[in-house]
Amino acid sequence: MNHVAICPGSFDPVTLGHLDIIERAAATFSRTVVAVLDNPVKKPLFSTAERCELLRKATAHLPGVEVKHFQGLLVDFARAEGARVIIRGLRALSDFEAEFQMALTNKHLAPEIETMFMVTRPEFSFLSSSMVKELVRFGGSVAGFVTPEVEEALMAKRELLQR
Amino acid sequence: MNHVAICPGSFDPVTLGHLDIIERAAATFSRTVVAVLDNPVKKPLFSTAERCELLRKATAHLPGVEVKHFQGLLVDFARAEGARVIIRGLRALSDFEAEFQMALTNKHLAPEIETMFMVTRPEFSFLSSSMVKELVRFGGSVAGFVTPEVEEALMAKRELLQR
Amino acid sequence: MNHVAICPGSFDPVTLGHLDIIERAAATFSRTVVAVLDNPVKKPLFSTAERCELLRKATAHLPGVEVKHFQGLLVDFARAEGARVIIRGLRALSDFEAEFQMALTNKHLAPEIETMFMVTRPEFSFLSSSMVKELVRFGGSVAGFVTPEVEEALMAKRELLQR
Amino acid sequence: MNHVAICPGSFDPVTLGHLDIIERAAATFSRTVVAVLDNPVKKPLFSTAERCELLRKATAHLPGVEVKHFQGLLVDFARAEGARVIIRGLRALSDFEAEFQMALTNKHLAPEIETMFMVTRPEFSFLSSSMVKELVRFGGSVAGFVTPEVEEALMAKRELLQR
Amino acid sequence: MNHVAICPGSFDPVTLGHLDIIERAAATFSRTVVAVLDNPVKKPLFSTAERCELLRKATAHLPGVEVKHFQGLLVDFARAEGARVIIRGLRALSDFEAEFQMALTNKHLAPEIETMFMVTRPEFSFLSSSMVKELVRFGGSVAGFVTPEVEEALMAKRELLQR
Amino acid sequence: MNHVAICPGSFDPVTLGHLDIIERAAATFSRTVVAVLDNPVKKPLFSTAERCELLRKATAHLPGVEVKHFQGLLVDFARAEGARVIIRGLRALSDFEAEFQMALTNKHLAPEIETMFMVTRPEFSFLSSSMVKELVRFGGSVAGFVTPEVEEALMAKRELLQR
Repeated sequence: MNHVAICPGSFDPVTLGHLDIIERAAATFSRTVVAVLDNPVKKPLFSTAERCELLRKATAHLPGVEVKHFQGLLVDFARAEGARVIIRGLRALSDFEAEFQMALTNKHLAPEIETMFMVTRPEFSFLSSSMVKELVRFGGSVAGFVTPEVEEALMAKRELLQR
Repeated sequence: MNHVAICPGSFDPVTLGHLDIIERAAATFSRTVVAVLDNPVKKPLFSTAERCELLRKATAHLPGVEVKHFQGLLVDFARAEGARVIIRGLRALSDFEAEFQMALTNKHLAPEIETMFMVTRPEFSFLSSSMVKELVRFGGSVAGFVTPEVEEALMAKRELLQR
Repeated sequence: MNHVAICPGSFDPVTLGHLDIIERAAATFSRTVVAVLDNPVKKPLFSTAERCELLRKATAHLPGVEVKHFQGLLVDFARAEGARVIIRGLRALSDFEAEFQMALTNKHLAPEIETMFMVTRPEFSFLSSSMVKELVRFGGSVAGFVTPEVEEALMAKRELLQR
Repeated sequence: MNHVAICPGSFDPVTLGHLDIIERAAATFSRTVVAVLDNPVKKPLFSTAERCELLRKATAHLPGVEVKHFQGLLVDFARAEGARVIIRGLRALSDFEAEFQMALTNKHLAPEIETMFMVTRPEFSFLSSSMVKELVRFGGSVAGFVTPEVEEALMAKRELLQR
Repeated sequence: MNHVAICPGSFDPVTLGHLDIIERAAATFSRTVVAVLDNPVKKPLFSTAERCELLRKATAHLPGVEVKHFQGLLVDFARAEGARVIIRGLRALSDFEAEFQMALTNKHLAPEIETMFMVTRPEFSFLSSSMVKELVRFGGSVAGFVTPEVEEALMAKRELLQR
Repeated sequence: MNHVAICPGSFDPVTLGHLDIIERAAATFSRTVVAVLDNPVKKPLFSTAERCELLRKATAHLPGVEVKHFQGLLVDFARAEGARVIIRGLRALSDFEAEFQMALTNKHLAPEIETMFMVTRPEFSFLSSSMVKELVRFGGSVAGFVTPEVEEALMAKRELLQR
């Protein structure tokens, strides 16, 4: 049996919704690799290094969790890590089309790797990185949506968001 | 009991679908504030002033309706207006995810303000500002989708749309 | 301006999700009539009288809330009560088809009456009367889903559910 | 780390879509318990014993797979089996509402147990036990939808389906 | 090229929404067979003969339209009629799951027959035979939803609906 | 009866999913015009000429299929071609909102033209031109998703995709 799970995402920045899924993955698998997509085309608010650093602080208390970044195909990264499971959070408000397409494409590319969805806790069902950045841009508080470290990091980027 | 409702939107430009919701809000609440989002990041076809002007002409016959524009968080604007209700039209073809996320985020930020959805009349269920602009861009008629004033304003911007 | 809202439903039995919507309606309208559907064809677990009684206990603290039951068309009942607004809770997991169909049919039958949807609080998004009855049937706890009075009433009907 | 997964269902009868999910669960977890719901209220076509027997034949080649039946709450059965994971197949055509409600209710009842969804293979996305029974009832072939043993068992019940 | 299309359904009773689809099919194909499902298990309000009769009156003005009833598999009936196309109306509020499942199952059973969906006119998007029967049961008017003949037939069955 | 159908799209580039729909249209209608949208605003990977050329190679074996490109409104193009039917593939994972909006808008603009949807084969339900381009960008194989000619053409553009 394989013990490694991958939690992929942009994490720009990590929210309490992401952390809920990572914690639950960490309680189920013996090793959980949080995989930060290093996409040179998209223009994230936080650099890959910053996103990894915020994730490391936020997951420091979780045994068996590592934070890494990757380029290229997710299934290639998963294979390199020896992982057989990809974990994604699914919200009642998710973009099902994109999630199913990604899972089915990955299954086609790597039949031995399973994507498994866990339902996000209802109180996080409306939470996303984009929404959090919108709130900061318009001057709203993000307490209760992200960790204090991420809140601080967002405030430091506030001017950038308002341009 | 609170008598003020907010009808927020980009209104770029106002359609007969928007007007249907505003009219129904005006028949239910004693004061209805149409709140035009003045978002410096998005690039609307019509300026904030133009969008407000088209709305004022289109709602002139409705008692208790005012047109205003706002920046920042909608709930802050609602509070400043003394409103307790935000009205949104919901189409069978709506982006439920975006609508629910907005309503739940606003509830989190301002628990005393309620977002209430009214179902758009079926004949307007496929109508949106973007679709209307697409039609003009490709040379189609928008009669039956917008007021004559808005149609005229769109025609005046036609070249801009085709660039 | 009209001050009366109707909150219709089967309430077999009332859940904390229903109460959340009733409370929010009561904070918005000066009079809120909880309308219990007395459908002779459906076979509810609780009689109409029992459902009304449980609702009265659960809403006793809410000013301006009355509990009534009705037969026939909801819009006829709303008209008889002098109400212009019907309030429904909408969950991310709702049966949108049924809700939209009901709202559009009622609009067709009574154009002067508006159905307004409020988004259910996320923590109640998976809660329904049927689910609560299933839980009781299989021996699960319903604490946190219904009031203590409703829990007690459900326990008293437990044998009936297991037949 | 916990190695036991539960695959719950009515399996009335098991289809190739169910088997796909069971096989993928068996490849991921060291022990997979197929849990047949023994619901005295619903009237299945096949008895609990028959459904278990068909499942045992269909999964005989899969290491670590056991077939059991249960009454009462799924989470109580999972706990008794020492399982921390419930596996469900999710089709693009699934009843998301029912699946999410079940997963969230189970999370509420047993926070230490995770429901994980795997996306059904596209060619099985339109396949269900009900559809298979409908086909038999109307005289259609079910080859390619179920195993030969299940096909035979269905043919033996054909008269019952046509009453 | 094949000129025959099948419009299948229960038509219990035919609504203006059904007629809109039949008319549009009749304008596209040279022969259109309205196929009334004669399902001995379901208990329709109108008998197969009554449903056919109401359809014949309602489609008398349409050239190339025939009304027939069938038992068994739809694709067998389509083949017997020499039809290569099955036409279904799709509403924004449709049960997509059921429609897709039916289309994909029929494609599996008869690869040479195509199911084609036409989008129902928006003003009929909330209209269904069940809704029309509910209205009659509760004493509402169905004018604007069905033809006068169907309205009369429904009134004659009103007592049956209220039992 | 009208024998011409239009299969519109961007086809940037054509996938096996598109070809499945075109083949099925060609088997139903005597003339099928594949209509490539020549949209000067969007920036496709392949030029209009390249997209047409790839389509011509991929459909060379299909009798009655022509490939053309168009600007402006689709319904104007359809009228110029003497077509009464527009064919679209609908996936279980489709953007229903966009598809319905397009169909209803076109119905409004040209009531005599019907949009007909065919359900995409399940194995292509997760396939799209964008997904294929993403795969190439990240170094994945697109065999089984496109024809060998399209695969070759994509490989030749690979560097462009990675900028």
